[in-house]
Amino acid sequence: MKPRAGGAPTRLSPRFSPALVTDLYQLTMLQAYFEERMSATAVFSLFARRLPERRNYLLACGLDEVLMYLETLRFDQAALEYLESLGQFSKRFLRHLETLRFTGDVYAVPEGTPVFANEPLLEVEAPIAEAQLVETFVMNEIHLQTVLASKASRVVHAARGRQVVDFGLRRIHGADAGIKAARAFYIAGVDATSNVAAGQAYGIRVAGTMAHSYIQAHDEEFEAFRDFARLYPDTVLLVDTYDTLEGVQKVIELARTLGSQFKVKAIRLDSGDLRDLSVKARRMLDDAGLQRVTIFASGGLNEDAVEKLTASGAPIDGFGVGADMGVSRDAPSLDFAYKLVEYAGQARMKLSAGKSTLPGRKQIFRVEPDGVADHDVLGRRDEAPLGRPLLQHVMAGGRRCQPRVALADAREQAKRELEHLPPRLRQIEPANPRYAVETSAALNRDLETVRQHFEAETVKR
Amino acid sequence: MKPRAGGAPTRLSPRFSPALVTDLYQLTMLQAYFEERMSATAVFSLFARRLPERRNYLLACGLDEVLMYLETLRFDQAALEYLESLGQFSKRFLRHLETLRFTGDVYAVPEGTPVFANEPLLEVEAPIAEAQLVETFVMNEIHLQTVLASKASRVVHAARGRQVVDFGLRRIHGADAGIKAARAFYIAGVDATSNVAAGQAYGIRVAGTMAHSYIQAHDEEFEAFRDFARLYPDTVLLVDTYDTLEGVQKVIELARTLGSQFKVKAIRLDSGDLRDLSVKARRMLDDAGLQRVTIFASGGLNEDAVEKLTASGAPIDGFGVGADMGVSRDAPSLDFAYKLVEYAGQARMKLSAGKSTLPGRKQIFRVEPDGVADHDVLGRRDEAPLGRPLLQHVMAGGRRCQPRVALADAREQAKRELEHLPPRLRQIEPANPRYAVETSAALNRDLETVRQHFEAETVKR
Repeated sequence: MKPRAGGAPTRLSPRFSPALVTDLYQLTMLQAYFEERMSATAVFSLFARRLPERRNYLLACGLDEVLMYLETLRFDQAALEYLESLGQFSKRFLRHLETLRFTGDVYAVPEGTPVFANEPLLEVEAPIAEAQLVETFVMNEIHLQTVLASKASRVVHAARGRQVVDFGLRRIHGADAGIKAARAFYIAGVDATSNVAAGQAYGIRVAGTMAHSYIQAHDEEFEAFRDFARLYPDTVLLVDTYDTLEGVQKVIELARTLGSQFKVKAIRLDSGDLRDLSVKARRMLDDAGLQRVTIFASGGLNEDAVEKLTASGAPIDGFGVGADMGVSRDAPSLDFAYKLVEYAGQARMKLSAGKSTLPGRKQIFRVEPDGVADHDVLGRRDEAPLGRPLLQHVMAGGRRCQPRVALADAREQAKRELEHLPPRLRQIEPANPRYAVETSAALNRDLETVRQHFEAETVKR
Repeated sequence: MKPRAGGAPTRLSPRFSPALVTDLYQLTMLQAYFEERMSATAVFSLFARRLPERRNYLLACGLDEVLMYLETLRFDQAALEYLESLGQFSKRFLRHLETLRFTGDVYAVPEGTPVFANEPLLEVEAPIAEAQLVETFVMNEIHLQTVLASKASRVVHAARGRQVVDFGLRRIHGADAGIKAARAFYIAGVDATSNVAAGQAYGIRVAGTMAHSYIQAHDEEFEAFRDFARLYPDTVLLVDTYDTLEGVQKVIELARTLGSQFKVKAIRLDSGDLRDLSVKARRMLDDAGLQRVTIFASGGLNEDAVEKLTASGAPIDGFGVGADMGVSRDAPSLDFAYKLVEYAGQARMKLSAGKSTLPGRKQIFRVEPDGVADHDVLGRRDEAPLGRPLLQHVMAGGRRCQPRVALADAREQAKRELEHLPPRLRQIEPANPRYAVETSAALNRDLETVRQHFEAETVKR
């Protein structure tokens, strides 16, 4: 086998310019702002209009990648040439784009903070063109990681301290989501990932042992177990390729054969009635004196299945969770919005049916008597604190103005913040009552003033 | 604004080695195959175990990227160093990985082919290590694009010839899925995308005009319309920022003001009761002599909403479809499997509860009396054709053995193949009866032989 020439990297997709990961209308609007010399500061607010039925909170996630993007944003030559080929951008505007960088400020809740409907996860303040341009990627990234962290947080809760491993890569939507998912899951409390690229990119612990195909490629299951355990003494053996309990029996035979050389750490069940099989497998292992061999379960799991297994007392020590968590099957997207709330010092709002927005720069105040969150107050950013303020100034003039948060710290942040929520919110089932988010008196006054102004304008014209 | 130094590209994620977009267990198994000198040819088959309730067919998609990946797969130095750092791979094995390339064969259905449960979308034949290693990416890519093309195909059907534009980027899961989605949608019949990077990567037509924020940043809606239309005379104006019908009225005023200079092509409705508003807006435009201004609708659309609008005769000429199509909300993942069906010339199968597989190299035969598909027969690859064979030999020895298919041709292929399906399958509602897939007599015989062999083995041991 002769290696192909050259050091060209493996290609997962055709080439594209990262700065073009945006909607065309951002660029047509940018050219309009450019031509109209509109360059005043705009404030955009990113929030979820409502929460899915089965989400008692959203776990904010994805900020670090957003800041990385904002710090590095620039149009490369290929991007400019492609835009020129579209025939709707002037040379003057394209020259302007070439030098465009993000120079604005960002206020955001730290990753791992639980947030609720209408609460800004992030506010961008920048010359309007810059704040507009970044909308698509900022939403894409925060949406993706928040969707996935929020889902994973439920799985972790259901596992009640047992290990959870991300097995989702093959069905997560694409390579980019694959590595971001592993990151979001880790922040939400997942212990490891099967995704090697995510391990490389983020330093997350990687895990994984064998697939059915390895067993099938051997003439006998026992032989496959023996050969694998020779190379990886403390491995996990997959026992359900043919008959699960026969598979367990073969692990026991291997222990007898190897004696003190037997170091196998766990067996994995991947099909069938996991509760029933785990009980029987546990009994067989215990009877054989293999108490220290643990049981790992996988196969179509989600938070409901995990909850049912842990609640039933099934002797399962860890869970591999794949597609359901990886695509957040019951809520794969959120009703996120990135809305203009102020331009040139004037509060702005949208009145579209069912989609109206709150004007101005905001702050979230979490009211926590005795250390437990009772409700939040959504207020003006400049008003006297009505509780613990959650939004922090994280970027100034296009540069981070806080030290980068280590992944392990974001994970700790999530753990700590979740512990401050009332227990009913941490449950899998919809909380009753749901968590209350009020608006402050000052914000309500602003809302009324701006609404009257725009309604008067509409009638006048 | 001073451009930052250097030509470093915009970063959407931390760096990772593309070859590491795989599950760790592929690599632990690879080292085991290496140590055990298992290098015989393996055949893996990729198929969906079942179809979601609301999918009458899957539209196979993603093959071109898979072939691109297989042609370029190699471990770069960063990948090898990361793997070494994990402490479970020998130097000898890592040196072997360095020279590893994909040298196998691929049989696949052309992109745009409708397939059904248990039908292989693709079969990989290669030395077992190579066929094993590529599992994760091959599944990820074919799964992603097939999920999205299958969803989009329904939206296109519901639109009944009206234009459909992909507006999903902000909520599609990540940048990679964003561009692949636009591609899959295009093959399924979607007309354009808002995703500029997808336009650059694939040459798909890009579309988009203005957002609410552009309107809001102007003091008056009319002024925003006028300024935008000055720069883009044949644009689409978004009319629902404050009050939709007032917005339409302002477009009419603009037409009166501009006279023969008025070239605005369409208005866009993005909220409220789209049927009611489109009827009223159409009447207002017609009464003003603006029959040639068309109506474009967006806002929370999916195939059901589009179907309802087109069936009701709403005067809507095009649809912008976002999150629901972009994450395939009702079926964001499929029960895909990539299973070993042959090793070293011997058929293999898995007997796990509810997850058993069909052994050996296969072919799909589509039986089409009078040019309409009646049922499929899943047979042995080497048996005499029982209908039109769908799987083609697309890669030999790690190289494409068929010319690359242009995107427009894949789109044509999808259109043609869908026309050959019975009309009940093209409907949005679940087909009754569902499409029948039989197994050939020869394949049934193989299945029995292999099952008896493995059951006998299980009992014996």
